[in-house]
Order: sequence, then structure tokens, then C-alpha cells
Amino acid sequence: MNTKTPKITTGPLPASRKIHIPGQIHDIRVPLREIAVTGEAPLAVYDSSGPYTDPAVTTDIAEGLAPQRGGWQIARGDVEAYEGRSVTAADNGFAEGARLTPEFPVRRRPLRAAGGRAVTQIAYARAGIVTPEMEFVAIRENHGRTEAWCAARDGEAFGADIPDLVTPEFVRAEIAAGRAIIPANINHRELEPVVIGRNFLVKINANIGNSAVTSSMEEEVEKMVWAIRWGADTVMDLSTGRNIHNIRDWILRNAPVPIGTVPLYQALEKVNGVAEDLSWEVFRDTLIEQAEQGVDYFTIHAGVRLHMIPMTADRVTGIVSRGGSIMAKWCLHHHRESFLYEHFEEICDICRAYDVSFSLGDGLRPGSIADANDAAQFAELETLGELTQIAWARDCQVMIEGPGHVPMHKIKANMDKQLEHCQGAPFYTLGPLTTDIAPGYDHITSAIGAAMIGWFGTAMLCYVTPKEHLGLPDRDDVKTGVITYKLAAHAADLAKGHPGARARDDALSRARFEFRWQDQFNLSLDPETATAMHDETLPKEAHKVAHFCSMCGPKFCSMRISHDIRAAAQQREGMERMAAKFRAGGDLYVPAETAEPAE
Amino acid sequence: MNTKTPKITTGPLPASRKIHIPGQIHDIRVPLREIAVTGEAPLAVYDSSGPYTDPAVTTDIAEGLAPQRGGWQIARGDVEAYEGRSVTAADNGFAEGARLTPEFPVRRRPLRAAGGRAVTQIAYARAGIVTPEMEFVAIRENHGRTEAWCAARDGEAFGADIPDLVTPEFVRAEIAAGRAIIPANINHRELEPVVIGRNFLVKINANIGNSAVTSSMEEEVEKMVWAIRWGADTVMDLSTGRNIHNIRDWILRNAPVPIGTVPLYQALEKVNGVAEDLSWEVFRDTLIEQAEQGVDYFTIHAGVRLHMIPMTADRVTGIVSRGGSIMAKWCLHHHRESFLYEHFEEICDICRAYDVSFSLGDGLRPGSIADANDAAQFAELETLGELTQIAWARDCQVMIEGPGHVPMHKIKANMDKQLEHCQGAPFYTLGPLTTDIAPGYDHITSAIGAAMIGWFGTAMLCYVTPKEHLGLPDRDDVKTGVITYKLAAHAADLAKGHPGARARDDALSRARFEFRWQDQFNLSLDPETATAMHDETLPKEAHKVAHFCSMCGPKFCSMRISHDIRAAAQQREGMERMAAKFRAGGDLYVPAETAEPAE
Repeated sequence: MNTKTPKITTGPLPASRKIHIPGQIHDIRVPLREIAVTGEAPLAVYDSSGPYTDPAVTTDIAEGLAPQRGGWQIARGDVEAYEGRSVTAADNGFAEGARLTPEFPVRRRPLRAAGGRAVTQIAYARAGIVTPEMEFVAIRENHGRTEAWCAARDGEAFGADIPDLVTPEFVRAEIAAGRAIIPANINHRELEPVVIGRNFLVKINANIGNSAVTSSMEEEVEKMVWAIRWGADTVMDLSTGRNIHNIRDWILRNAPVPIGTVPLYQALEKVNGVAEDLSWEVFRDTLIEQAEQGVDYFTIHAGVRLHMIPMTADRVTGIVSRGGSIMAKWCLHHHRESFLYEHFEEICDICRAYDVSFSLGDGLRPGSIADANDAAQFAELETLGELTQIAWARDCQVMIEGPGHVPMHKIKANMDKQLEHCQGAPFYTLGPLTTDIAPGYDHITSAIGAAMIGWFGTAMLCYVTPKEHLGLPDRDDVKTGVITYKLAAHAADLAKGHPGARARDDALSRARFEFRWQDQFNLSLDPETATAMHDETLPKEAHKVAHFCSMCGPKFCSMRISHDIRAAAQQREGMERMAAKFRAGGDLYVPAETAEPAE
Repeated sequence: MNTKTPKITTGPLPASRKIHIPGQIHDIRVPLREIAVTGEAPLAVYDSSGPYTDPAVTTDIAEGLAPQRGGWQIARGDVEAYEGRSVTAADNGFAEGARLTPEFPVRRRPLRAAGGRAVTQIAYARAGIVTPEMEFVAIRENHGRTEAWCAARDGEAFGADIPDLVTPEFVRAEIAAGRAIIPANINHRELEPVVIGRNFLVKINANIGNSAVTSSMEEEVEKMVWAIRWGADTVMDLSTGRNIHNIRDWILRNAPVPIGTVPLYQALEKVNGVAEDLSWEVFRDTLIEQAEQGVDYFTIHAGVRLHMIPMTADRVTGIVSRGGSIMAKWCLHHHRESFLYEHFEEICDICRAYDVSFSLGDGLRPGSIADANDAAQFAELETLGELTQIAWARDCQVMIEGPGHVPMHKIKANMDKQLEHCQGAPFYTLGPLTTDIAPGYDHITSAIGAAMIGWFGTAMLCYVTPKEHLGLPDRDDVKTGVITYKLAAHAADLAKGHPGARARDDALSRARFEFRWQDQFNLSLDPETATAMHDETLPKEAHKVAHFCSMCGPKFCSMRISHDIRAAAQQREGMERMAAKFRAGGDLYVPAETAEPAE
């Protein structure tokens, strides 16, 4: 295993350079990607890829990223460094010797809230404080703009309230209201903050993680770097098996994006995989372990309650959430209410001391079209609403996880009920998949549902790869999943009428119409694939400036003919005047054009 | 080129056999595919693949398929065989010698309507006649059921009127009303008829065709066979370049699905690619040529009128339909109304003599998000509505083509306006693509739009492959496009509440929950890919019965845990009684289960 040492992928995307926009309130630098376009102003786009795409930065995964955010937490004067919990053999699944992933070389003392203070973004927001994190995401959401778009807005936002320009104050108000979160553990100093909420750009999450068939820490770091290169806004480390603790450290120290986890997975490893042996004590210890490392959000399946489990008895696919099924087994075995539910306030107290955001897990989400929107699912959603109130009362940031498998006509009800029960807390859905019959293509069955629910108001979409239901995604699957979800999220932004979302579509379409092939590739979500597909049939460099492509050839190229039409028309008189003449029924002579060659 | 002799793909899909349901009115046999399922009744599914997947039939492309439908047209007593038009050198783009694709070996005299009669399905339907074609599609739509589904209906059909059981009489009434078509040229005797309409299963079309970089007739036949193997309901031959006539003959004589064309493409070849040199005479001759061969539907861009062309002047991507741009160029050059518009009644007369259905082309469809739903597009749609009335008045079958590139929030307006202007004539859309920024992934950007517009009422979805905008699709691209569109069409059927649509989802989900991996693969749209992806991580045969997969491993398998939970609960007392006890707050002891092995 250790002989594999994959390189970390670095370097800019084609025609792209990293730019940084300074803050006006705080001393911050917000990275964006600027794509050069022939004959047009460069296009600035959202950039989640971190320093890895910045040639000016040398990265070394054994050092980790520069702790650029490190000073912000300290400056607030409400945190203290302390010794932290000692790493135990159980934390790494009792891995030993050559099987033990080495510790991350640099150890820092963790931070926590001093004197029981709330050090969460929502606490600051409620106190009227605009944090550096808030200004950072405001600049990021605007792609660096400082003025509102002058282009007309167009879209159907279903009650979302998307401003023409995101201001730091707007971010603060959204966070204070619980409608958005900035997952930003005070121990994740390497973070470039991200905002997740219905009134912002739709975000996507990619899952990584080693499993029993382990992978090395380099491989996991590379998976994360690879996922964010293509646009993942957050990454969940769903590792199971050995070395969870150490690998997570390597990931966090090298992650510019928020990292989420399901602490229950590691807790289960600590009790050797026996769900019944889980306890609040083991779980609590795991939360602190991960909070000290800097995990930005925790999936907590506290909504799976004892009385709901029989509601799943007639389901076609039972309980399909790993966390949900583990808790259901525990509850039934002990015939007790879930310890996650019973200790929820204590979980909140841990989260508020590190600013770990909640991702309230949907342990009873449907795993098939047949089970969509059933009593079990919605009973849990109501409980998630109750828990949201409890977390908010303790100044914790909350988002809510959603399904799953849902046919198109039942998708909107999910969003509506989530808004109703969870009072506007951001929704974070897995797909949903709109049919069960296409294993191998579930990135697509789910992109349909994801684009729709993103349009309806879901703030973040958890990606699904082509391997869903079948196996572990490899590098290509991760990329396919990320690109698929980026396009789904973007389709949602367009439909919501997000200001400026169309700028990239329009730039690419202009390039397409003007046969600027290279610009078309550069402006696309995946320039490599677009270029490779084009080159399969027309590989020569000259074809990159050809006024046709292999699909129709020169004679049948509608765009080329469109240009001929425009040129001919403009030669005689402006199109405007021509139109007027047509309307008036006047006569118009357009000179014969040069006949095209026969083939 | 001729050294390449690809084999035609034959043989059944895994665990599948061809079954035939006899007619009750007519002497017909309707093919379906039956998938064997372990421990359950086999599942009958719609089967567009023709005799190629029937081991009982030996196919030879030089002989063509058996003319199973041949007798039906004759039996109606309203057609006559005649000599037919002579093939000219221009028909094959003046190809000569070794470059000339050989003629199809068997030549039959074409049929046409005798004595100016209308030999169209709509004419029969209006006369109260239930044709064999109508009974055939009724049986096909029901997957062989003869009784209504007893399962509860569930869905939102937006005004579509989908019956519990499709009867031949229902088909007749839909055809008579113009709400559905059966594209079935009387000269396409090899056809297994298909119905296209809002109140039937959503269909998909795949495009094939040679181009200037020619392919052989075997390659084109194989492309068609390959596309229908994976589920294409109709195939459009969009060939340009040489040998169009002869290759089309090979395709038609081997095609069990309706074949559509854009006659303008061949007409343009006949005038050496000079749009201005097109004339009604050349076009008319091409229509008759293709009608005699058996083309089932013609895309006719008669809606592009002279006065609309200036409306495209401010578009980002001008005119992107090949046919639309050719006609626009012709109109502007001659400063005349389109000959397609002016001669539309004569086109109808040809179509009614052979029962060629109209696919009224959307020559001004938007080619970018920026151009969606603009004045040019909707002006043309209104004209298509006028033309529909003219065609209906002449007993012609009509469907209407739709866009294109449309953001999600503007999709429904397309369906609504189409229903309004075209009085329920079936809608046939290309996607639509919901964003422009993902070349290389446009099968996905468009599947999102296709699933949605299919749900809203579109009757047939024209596929988009990953190569869209970039190059010519290869075999893998065609398959990816077809499967992607099958899943989108199926998602639409589910959302419309089509009776029985969920049967396949449920069967697959049951297999998934019960770890019947092989059934899961067999029931999927693409068993080969599903199996291959599973085998990448768990290749052994034993893993096909394993109660876990590589994604979560045995310890974290939620479905396995769900089974444990059910087994434990059922051991003590029925889940039902357990639920009652929970509700009553009673005590319930569930015995400890065997601890799982540590790893």
C-alpha cells in the first residue's frame, strides 16, 4: 500500500490565474480564478481549489497549508489554546507498526472557547459583529464585484431573497437568522470560508474516505485536492477502518475547504463495529477528538428516534443511511431513546466551543422511489426541526440533510416541508435520485433531482458518483461526480436568477458562436474533457480556429451560416433597419454570397 | 473504409428473453422483453430492440428484416404498388466506383395511396378504424398487461390523461384527436409501430448518420441496431455527404423502429451545398424519394419565415438549427418567403400518400441560455401551430420540435405555449440543456431539462450525447446518450404517475435490499456497466451474493443492519405489534444479537 505515492495535483487550470481581492473591513485576501478570454475582459469565477492552483504557492502536504485564518480566531480574544486530548490507539483503529499511518508532523495545541463563550459565527452575527469570515464569503459570492450587476434579473427563486450584491452585512444577517452557515471550526486555520444558504450560490459536497481496504494519507489528501480542483465546495471525510484519526489530520491540515465528518463512524470503530456497544461517552470523546482537529461540520443522526423505527417496517429498502441504521439498531437493542437525541444539548455545547456546525443527518431518508416522502422520513424531519431550535438557542450553526431517492413530483414537498419545519435552516440533500433503474448512471439520475431541489432552495448538494450503489469511486468517478454536481448547482443558480450566474454561460456561448474553440474549452467546467472530445475527431491545431466542427462540417454549420446571414445583412444596412423594412413590407436586396466549396 | 466490417450486435440482454403477445383484434405479435428475477415473477419491459435480441431470429443485413407489417397496408386495400422514382447520381452525392455504397440488394416496388386517398393513421382513426398499428402500440404500452394495474396511481400529470390500461380504442381516439402519432410509412414494412403522445410512455430518439468523413452502410446499420438495443424508440438518420440514398435504404430495410430524416439535408447535397440554389422542385423530389424508401417522419422547417429572421439579429448564438439556418439564408438571399411555408399543402399531400408524419422543425430554437424563450422562438412556434392545423386538415400526423437551450425556470413555458399553439400535437424536444457551461457533459445538462419537460408533457425526447458541441459521437457516446435519455424519460413517466412505471424501480430496489446483486444488474438499464463497476472493486463471483458491497463494507452496511433489525423484531413479535406497543409506551425486550466480527 505504501509503495503508492500519488502526486498531489497542482497548477492552474487552462488560461486561468489566481487573483486575490482584498477586504475592506478586514485584512483578508479572497482568492478567485480569472479565466482569460480572447477579445473580452477576463471572467472571474468562484474558486474552491485553494492554493494548489496558485503557481505562486509551493505546497508540501507534510507542512500543510499556511494557517491564513489562524489570526482571526485569536484576534477575537475569546479562545484559549490548551493541551488537548491525547491520541489513543483506538483513535486509529488499533493500527500498529507499518500499518499505522504516521502522525501529521506538526502538532499545534488546539483552541477552544474560553470561559464557556460561544465562538460561533451565529453568536457573532447575533451580536452584530461582521467577522472576517463573513466579509470573506461576501466577496467570494460576488466573484469580486463591488457593484451590483446592471444586467436584468431573471429567474424564479421560490421565495429566496438573493441580493444584487452580497454585502458583509447581508451575510451577517443571514447567519444571525440561521438561514445560512459558515462551517468554520476555530481549529481549521487553513480554511477559506464558504457560506451555505438559500440566498447564496448553491454549493456542492464531495465525499472521500478510506475504507477497510485502506488507502494512504497521500491518497486521501490527493482525493480532497482533486475534488476541490473541479469545484467541490466542501469535502466530507467518511473514512472507516483503521487510521481514521491520523488520516483526518493530514486532510485537515491540507484542506482549504470545510471538512465534514460523521463522528458515529469513528465511534463505531472504537467499539469494534458492534453498534450495541456504542455509548454516549465514546461518542462524546470522538466529538472532542474531531473538534480539536478542526472538523468544520458534524453529521449527527439525532433525529432517528425509537418510536420511528417501526415506521420503516414496510419499506422496500428499510433504512439506508449508515448512521441511521446504526442508531436504529442501538435503540432497538437497548430499547432506549437514542443517546444522540437525549444528549443533544451536550453535543451543542461541544459544537459551540469550537464552532462545529451541525449537519443534522437524515437517518431515515428513503432509499428507493417506493419509500419517498413516507411517514418515517417526515417524522424525522419534524424532529430535525425541533433540534434546530435547540441548537440555535445554544448559538450553534445548523444545516439539515435531505434525501435520497425521490421521484420528480415529490421533490418540491421535501423542500417545502424542510422550510416549514426547520425555519429556514439550510437544506443539504443527497441528490435526490429520480429513478432507481439506472445503477452506473446515478450521478445523472440524481443530478436531475439535485438541480431541481437546488432551484427550489436547497443550499448544498451532496454529489453522487457513477459508482453509487456499486462500488468505491475512483479518481475519474470523483471528477465526474463533482463536474456533474457543479453543472446541476449552476443550473439551479441560473433558474433562481442568481445575479451574474449567466455571465459564464454567455461568455461561453459567445465563444461558441464566434468559433473561439479554445475559449469555449477554457470557460467550460472541464476544459480537459472538452478539448479531448473535440480533438478526437479534429485533432489539428488549425481546427481550434476552424469555423466549423466535425459534427456538421463546414457546409452544414448553422452558426457559420448565421454569420454569413449577419454579414450580408449588415453589409447593406443595419439589421435594425432591415427589420423595419420587413415589417413595412419593403423590398430588400441582399447580394449573392460567394458559393461555398462543394465539400 | 470498406475494410472495416463491424459486426451487427445481436443476442439478448442478460437474463432476458423475447416474448410475443398476440393481438385480440388483429393477427399481430407484439414483442416484449422479459427479465428473469430470482424468487419473483419475471418483469416484462418495453422492448425497442427488434429481432436483433431474439435468438430465434437470424438476421442478415443484406436481406433486411422480415416485412412483418407488409400485409397490413395491403389488406386495407387503399394502396397501390408502382414503379417509383429512378435513383439518380445526385441522390448519392455523385459518388462513383469504389466510393459508391452498393444498393440494397432487394428492390421492392414502392406503395402509395391509390386514388388520392389518405392512408394515414389519423385518417383511419377519424374514420373509426382501429388499425393493426393501433392495437400493436396499445399492447406494447401496457407491457402486455390485459388488466389495469391495481396499484394506486401516484403522480402529477399536468393535465395529461393517462389511462390505467391503454386500449386500442384509446389509441385510436388519441390519434384521431391529433394528440398522438404512430410514425409508420406504408413503405416501412419492417416496422414495429410506436406511439408518440403525451398520454403514453415518454419516448426517446437517437440520431445517427454518416458525414463528409463517411462511414460504411454496415457501420450505419450497426449504429441504429446499437441505439435501439439500449432503448432508442426512434432513430433519425441525419446523414450528409455522399451515399445518403443507398445508406438510408440499408438502414430502413433493417430498422424495426421509425426512421426520421431532415430531407433538407439531402436536398442541399443535391445542389452542391449552396443554400441559395435550393428550390421547391429539388425539395419535392427528395420528399418523394425518401417517402418511397419508407422514411417514417420528416423534419420540415416550414416555420422559419422571412419576417422572423431579423428577430435573431441580437441573439448570442443566432440560428443554431442547421435546417433553420439554411432556410434563413435562402429566404434572405431571395428575399422571398420560405418555399417550405409556401408549398406546405403540397408537402402534406405527399405525406398523406405515404403516411409520413410531420416533425415540424424548430429552426429558430435557442442555442444558448441567453436566447431561450425569445421572440423569434415563440413566433416560429405560433407558425408551427398554424401549420399543424393545415396538416391535420389534410389527414396528416404531426409532432412539433422544441428546444434546445433553456434554463429550468423557462422550461414549463415552452410546454404550455406548445400545448396552447399546437392544440395538443405531440411535443418532441432536444433536451433542453439547462446550462451552457459544461461541454463534454451536455448529455447531463440536457437530461435535467429533458426529464422535466417530459414530466410536463413532452412526448419524445431527442437524445444528446457527451460529444454534443464538440464532435461526432462514437459507439460509447451513443450508448451513454441513449441510457441517459432512457433514465430521463423513465423519471418523467414516474413523475407523471404512469401506471406500472414504478414496477421496475420497485423490483430493482427489492433486489438491492435483498442483496440480489445479479438481479439488480439485470433489471438495470445497462447491466454491462453496472456489473463492470461492481466488479472493479469486488470481482469474485462470491461477491455477487455477498450481503454487503465495497462502498461500506459489511460493518457499515445499512441494508444489512436493516435486515438484522427486522429479523430481531420479527423474532419476538410482528413489527406491527411492536409498533403498537411503542405507541402505547409499553416495554419491549429485543434479545441481543450475535456480535459482528471485528473486521
